Amino acid sequence: MEGGGAKDGSAAAAQTRGSGDDASNKPLPPCCVKAKTAAAESEAKCHATVVSGWFTEPRSRFGKTSKVQYFNNPMWPGEAHSLKVENILFQGKSPYQEVLVFESSTYGNVLVLDGIVQLTEKDECAYQEMVTHLPLCSIPSPKSVLVVGGGDGGVLREIARHASVETIDICEIDQLVIDVCKDFFPQLSIGFKDPRVQLHVGDAVDFLRNAPEGKYDAIIVDSSDPIGPAQELVEKPFFQTIARALKPGGVLCNQAESMWLHTHLIQDMLSICHETLKGAVHYAWASVPTYPSGVIGFLLCAKEGPAVNFLSPVNPIEKLEGAMEAGREMRFYNSEVHRAAFVLPTFARRELESHITCTEKDKSETKQVAKPMKMKIVPNSAIPAAS
Amino acid sequence: MEGGGAKDGSAAAAQTRGSGDDASNKPLPPCCVKAKTAAAESEAKCHATVVSGWFTEPRSRFGKTSKVQYFNNPMWPGEAHSLKVENILFQGKSPYQEVLVFESSTYGNVLVLDGIVQLTEKDECAYQEMVTHLPLCSIPSPKSVLVVGGGDGGVLREIARHASVETIDICEIDQLVIDVCKDFFPQLSIGFKDPRVQLHVGDAVDFLRNAPEGKYDAIIVDSSDPIGPAQELVEKPFFQTIARALKPGGVLCNQAESMWLHTHLIQDMLSICHETLKGAVHYAWASVPTYPSGVIGFLLCAKEGPAVNFLSPVNPIEKLEGAMEAGREMRFYNSEVHRAAFVLPTFARRELESHITCTEKDKSETKQVAKPMKMKIVPNSAIPAAS
Repeated sequence: MEGGGAKDGSAAAAQTRGSGDDASNKPLPPCCVKAKTAAAESEAKCHATVVSGWFTEPRSRFGKTSKVQYFNNPMWPGEAHSLKVENILFQGKSPYQEVLVFESSTYGNVLVLDGIVQLTEKDECAYQEMVTHLPLCSIPSPKSVLVVGGGDGGVLREIARHASVETIDICEIDQLVIDVCKDFFPQLSIGFKDPRVQLHVGDAVDFLRNAPEGKYDAIIVDSSDPIGPAQELVEKPFFQTIARALKPGGVLCNQAESMWLHTHLIQDMLSICHETLKGAVHYAWASVPTYPSGVIGFLLCAKEGPAVNFLSPVNPIEKLEGAMEAGREMRFYNSEVHRAAFVLPTFARRELESHITCTEKDKSETKQVAKPMKMKIVPNSAIPAAS
Repeated sequence: MEGGGAKDGSAAAAQTRGSGDDASNKPLPPCCVKAKTAAAESEAKCHATVVSGWFTEPRSRFGKTSKVQYFNNPMWPGEAHSLKVENILFQGKSPYQEVLVFESSTYGNVLVLDGIVQLTEKDECAYQEMVTHLPLCSIPSPKSVLVVGGGDGGVLREIARHASVETIDICEIDQLVIDVCKDFFPQLSIGFKDPRVQLHVGDAVDFLRNAPEGKYDAIIVDSSDPIGPAQELVEKPFFQTIARALKPGGVLCNQAESMWLHTHLIQDMLSICHETLKGAVHYAWASVPTYPSGVIGFLLCAKEGPAVNFLSPVNPIEKLEGAMEAGREMRFYNSEVHRAAFVLPTFARRELESHITCTEKDKSETKQVAKPMKMKIVPNSAIPAAS
């Protein structure tokens, strides 16, 4: 998940490279002062989100500290995930966001934007493979693809598996993210080496507004969370520009948060996509340990035109020549995982079902699906208490 | 996940009830001293795992403190999940383990044994429904079921949906867990009210050794992690006693950790079960936000005898009279989720496939499954660099 989006930044990029030792002559942030007061750990690699050698997503993304500033985030109140830090590899500030890279003990290198984990080397496979192949394996022969955000290059690496693709545009707002990933995430940024890739550094809303109408077979929105710079990317005007830029029957895949935490946001996105794209609209999900609640969701939508059945891949990855071996071995996605990703737990089905719309072809497929049947109700009180 | 298992405890149960305020005249644990040193938060509800109002699973489960004692666990090194604490509702010590219940900000009440989250009200549905219905919906008409551990009652609540079941034995080692859950998790402990339930408080290994041979259609092992009291429950002698107590064609479902973190442990369990039970052996998984890496796995095994096809429910829950309405609405499991639970990401398939064994019936089903096909290899270096 990379930050593509609005253009409100203005400060010049300020960068610090190497381990926290370089920062030893700077004032310690309050968290480290606190740590120092209590135990001999003030020499830990220093960053506002790292306390006692552990990174935790902060309470405030906007620099306001408090006594619990190293816990929590407005997108997932009441919980936090922490990773043990071996070394801080990079910290800097672009006009758009703060960029941090650290080496963790057990998840490899970690990319953090404005205090939020975007990817780790251990589990990036799940997100990158799913956000790419769910849309590209749902249409017969994708030729023209746009990536919004995705400055780490991971989605490009995955698109490269599709030999049918002729042009890959990517619009990432933050050059610093691209540069940092080239240094610290070579297994992702390898995606930029594909000669089909055209990089556009800039605002995605502007880019889409100026794109030729009906240009793309698929658009993949690999954005950060919709607070701060990526806020625009979950709002209706953005989806209208997406709809305009897609071919009839073209597909959109958008990162769409967690079914455990963000049902209302997902409902809103499904409704907006239904209104603006007018084709099938679905929610799929995958397990990603370092994202909040351990899952990430995907919005899969088609623009009106030739019907798209997302639920079963019409363009299975296993049958694409060279797909399995391009760039790096596949680690997460396969055609069975594709189908399973659309299967929702009962609570999510209940909350999202009315917002999901299918094509006629979808409907005939889903007729096989077992639905709850109306049965004689045995109320709770009918179960006698144990003697 | 409850602690059933060994019998090495000896200390008498010492209990404290109510909020942390009751403990104000006791010495503060080191973590709170640390917090007090730095900020005005020493009045927080006090427990060794609660710092600055947040619960985090501890580094050491056995009371050894260190400067980072409030982070990490030997089962998931390098990461930690934290929950914001509203109130500590109960803390006590049984002969087997430390029992803690707190009210969290966003996950409801939380049960913690020896510092490890066992369940939260928000996401217990996923674990309880899956560990129960994956086995019971895989055989035509289960009549006799044994639960090992499960003292919270959640598995019993789910078994109650199956009208075919005539007897439900439960062997939980820790009476304190049962009592505490009756007070603080009434939506789970309601499971004990079913008149078919026979509670046995004691060691499951002894219980199984003395059980009539071939008594059970299904055994559900709802254990805590295999460090400390539940260590025995992942070792071969335990599975031998399980095999002895199952009917031919009877099924076992055992909690089986995370595919992201514990592949070797899962491989060992699959191998042991293959050797001892001699029928089909599978791994399934579900999303549970408050378990490490956000997932939990299940080992599904059949004893040799009539073939069992776990991959698709032969006894679908949606067709069982009264099943959907018994006790509480279903929140997670449905027949599609059942099928999807056996679909493994490519990395897990690669690491576990050789350990999974199918019945002949399974094999005919899985023929439909797309497998990676051998294709012409396009090496990484064949992708030219961008100009």
